[in-house]
Amino acid sequence: MLCLDLMQEWIKKNPKASICTEAGVPEFKAIANFQDYHGLPEFREAIAKFMGKVRGEGINFDPARIVMSGGATGAAEILAFCLADPGEAFLVPTPYYPAFDRDLRWRTGIQLFPIHCESTNHFKITQSALESAYEKAQQANIRVKGVLVTNPSNPLGTTLDKKTLRTLVSFINAKRIHLICDEIFAGTVFSEPRFVGVSEILEEDPNCDQSLIHITYSLSKVLGLPGFRVGVVYSYNDTVVRCARRMSSFGLVSSQTQYLLASMLSDDEFTTELIAESRRRLSKRHEIFTSRLAQEGIQCLESNAGLFCWMNLKMLLKESTVEGELELWRRIIDDMKLNVSPGSSFHCSEPGWFRVCFANIDDETMEVALQRFKSFMRQAKKKRWQNGLRLSFPRRFEGMTTMTPMTPSLLSPHSPVVRATTPA
Amino acid sequence: MLCLDLMQEWIKKNPKASICTEAGVPEFKAIANFQDYHGLPEFREAIAKFMGKVRGEGINFDPARIVMSGGATGAAEILAFCLADPGEAFLVPTPYYPAFDRDLRWRTGIQLFPIHCESTNHFKITQSALESAYEKAQQANIRVKGVLVTNPSNPLGTTLDKKTLRTLVSFINAKRIHLICDEIFAGTVFSEPRFVGVSEILEEDPNCDQSLIHITYSLSKVLGLPGFRVGVVYSYNDTVVRCARRMSSFGLVSSQTQYLLASMLSDDEFTTELIAESRRRLSKRHEIFTSRLAQEGIQCLESNAGLFCWMNLKMLLKESTVEGELELWRRIIDDMKLNVSPGSSFHCSEPGWFRVCFANIDDETMEVALQRFKSFMRQAKKKRWQNGLRLSFPRRFEGMTTMTPMTPSLLSPHSPVVRATTPA
Repeated sequence: MLCLDLMQEWIKKNPKASICTEAGVPEFKAIANFQDYHGLPEFREAIAKFMGKVRGEGINFDPARIVMSGGATGAAEILAFCLADPGEAFLVPTPYYPAFDRDLRWRTGIQLFPIHCESTNHFKITQSALESAYEKAQQANIRVKGVLVTNPSNPLGTTLDKKTLRTLVSFINAKRIHLICDEIFAGTVFSEPRFVGVSEILEEDPNCDQSLIHITYSLSKVLGLPGFRVGVVYSYNDTVVRCARRMSSFGLVSSQTQYLLASMLSDDEFTTELIAESRRRLSKRHEIFTSRLAQEGIQCLESNAGLFCWMNLKMLLKESTVEGELELWRRIIDDMKLNVSPGSSFHCSEPGWFRVCFANIDDETMEVALQRFKSFMRQAKKKRWQNGLRLSFPRRFEGMTTMTPMTPSLLSPHSPVVRATTPA
Repeated sequence: MLCLDLMQEWIKKNPKASICTEAGVPEFKAIANFQDYHGLPEFREAIAKFMGKVRGEGINFDPARIVMSGGATGAAEILAFCLADPGEAFLVPTPYYPAFDRDLRWRTGIQLFPIHCESTNHFKITQSALESAYEKAQQANIRVKGVLVTNPSNPLGTTLDKKTLRTLVSFINAKRIHLICDEIFAGTVFSEPRFVGVSEILEEDPNCDQSLIHITYSLSKVLGLPGFRVGVVYSYNDTVVRCARRMSSFGLVSSQTQYLLASMLSDDEFTTELIAESRRRLSKRHEIFTSRLAQEGIQCLESNAGLFCWMNLKMLLKESTVEGELELWRRIIDDMKLNVSPGSSFHCSEPGWFRVCFANIDDETMEVALQRFKSFMRQAKKKRWQNGLRLSFPRRFEGMTTMTPMTPSLLSPHSPVVRATTPA
């Protein structure tokens, strides 16, 4: 879903945007041979403008601070290389995107240290959780170089509120450490509250040391272009911009792709419609998906962004452990042929949560997925009755008020259906 | 130069090759959303086929061993990460591509240890130079993990002969270390002897442990597409292929670019003509450039590949030191406004060599460059006469027989003219 169909229409109407059309081919030579690691100026300008637009009016990004990277994967690693030495750590609120362990740690030798967040307060990042994680790291003799948050959260699909962002910003200022905000899902906020990025906090807070703030961004999620490998490091720190720019040589964006997107994203009317339509579609899909799950007794964390839901399946666990969760996960994969990710893979400290992606599929596939959820839940209920157990929500879950079906989250636009075309 | 004009013609005739044309746009959605880090199967097949073709008949590459990387820059780093731990070293014959210090060392923490080669035997890599470098590294308590060679050489523009390749292969087998062959200039061999890649040696030598052999490749040089960031790791070692493939997430090739090149490079007739025409043009340009330099008394190392020449300007040095070389280099930049690179930047152990690129410029720019060389040399001669010194070639240089104008070499397709449009 998302809006690739709108992009296809735009492309048909704008043959000059490509170096591979009759109208655009005169530029082929210059673009193919273009290798300045600053990128095409018009590409950086278009990206900066688009980043601002996704965040609403009044937030400006400086094209000179846009550093290209090989997708968000490369962006995260570049910042890890720039900001920490091997053995040093970043604090990361749980649950978090599993591939951070690869992206940030694998080749850099840095560590990720969890900030444990809990469902009892909607997995919010609190001052005390931050302090506690920082102290634990110090006790373990680990030097903390920063905090890394995803906003909107993957896997939760929730956005950080202003108060939490201010807490984060003052925490890292007090400790003189860095803040990396992974905002790759910024364009997927489909309902209230609206998205507030860290840039907005900076503009309001003259006391914050901007040189501690860094953003990673990408077009993979909001535009649904993961194949194009457009990732960005945006840092308010001049030294980091310079260093990251040198490192970007390891993952530049193809100039062919830069050229196309420079043209597409500078079409103001088009991007306005693209962002609006994408939100409408996501909102509708989210509504359908979560309400249908709710009909089967599956509640999701309330959410307003992302391409995925964070489902609570605690009531289906045989035992409330990681093993119990993985056993359920295997049943979901094997019996239901549904492609969900267990909470433990996101370092969630509470067993029973699962992420399911709902966005990058067509209506038919969604219907197949929902039907499978339905029959799986009915079987589970039947089994429970037979075993003399009532299917009920765990107490902790009941404590979660306003539990309208929750937000989605996704790392790659996985279909929630495993081998949908193969008979189950 | 090279053959971007032929590619432009091909693109006009093959609108289906692009996802941004009316004919190709139906594939836009699937390709933009494609994110398998193995790459498009047809892209890997096309690259494997093209790699074989550039090396002549009978050399086959397995598409399953093609790993994408963000240009040759990313390919070199991926192999360094895969094959060595921080502090360990690769031996590299001098002179070598300056950016290896960034690509292989910067983020990996590995070391490069020079194998000193000399002009007295045309900078050839000898058994004794290999042994000597290896021993010196051991004496310095540095663990050697492999040898890295560029073939054809950047900056020399020469190709390794079979005997040298066999020496290298048996050396690394005896020591149980790795051999990385950077073959990114393989497609630029424009005259005899023909190119012999390491793959050819492996096919002839059943005793070689293939798991020690790795190749980096790219389309930036032979096709003149540096902007497209198409680099490749090709390893004969299954574990390295697996590990490199995981690392390729940091520098995948844009799926838009994969799609175009898959189509272009699988057009057999076209690539045959492209390779042949590129050779004809390079050969002609090299001939003109080096003979005109020779008329002014500048000799180049004899060469048969690359986009650059390795000029001997020892006769212009005030003193035969790195300082003397850099002083001359500054005069060339400031007075002549010519963009050449001093040998010391390539870790050359003999002062007075300079690399100049001749390929990626139009005829006019070349003419400007050659005129400036001419007036610079005439002035230099005049000055020498005035100072009572005869301009003569150093004795060592005279020892270099068959000194027909030599090969070019290039890291990026720099114009040899600095600010050609600005009045000097």
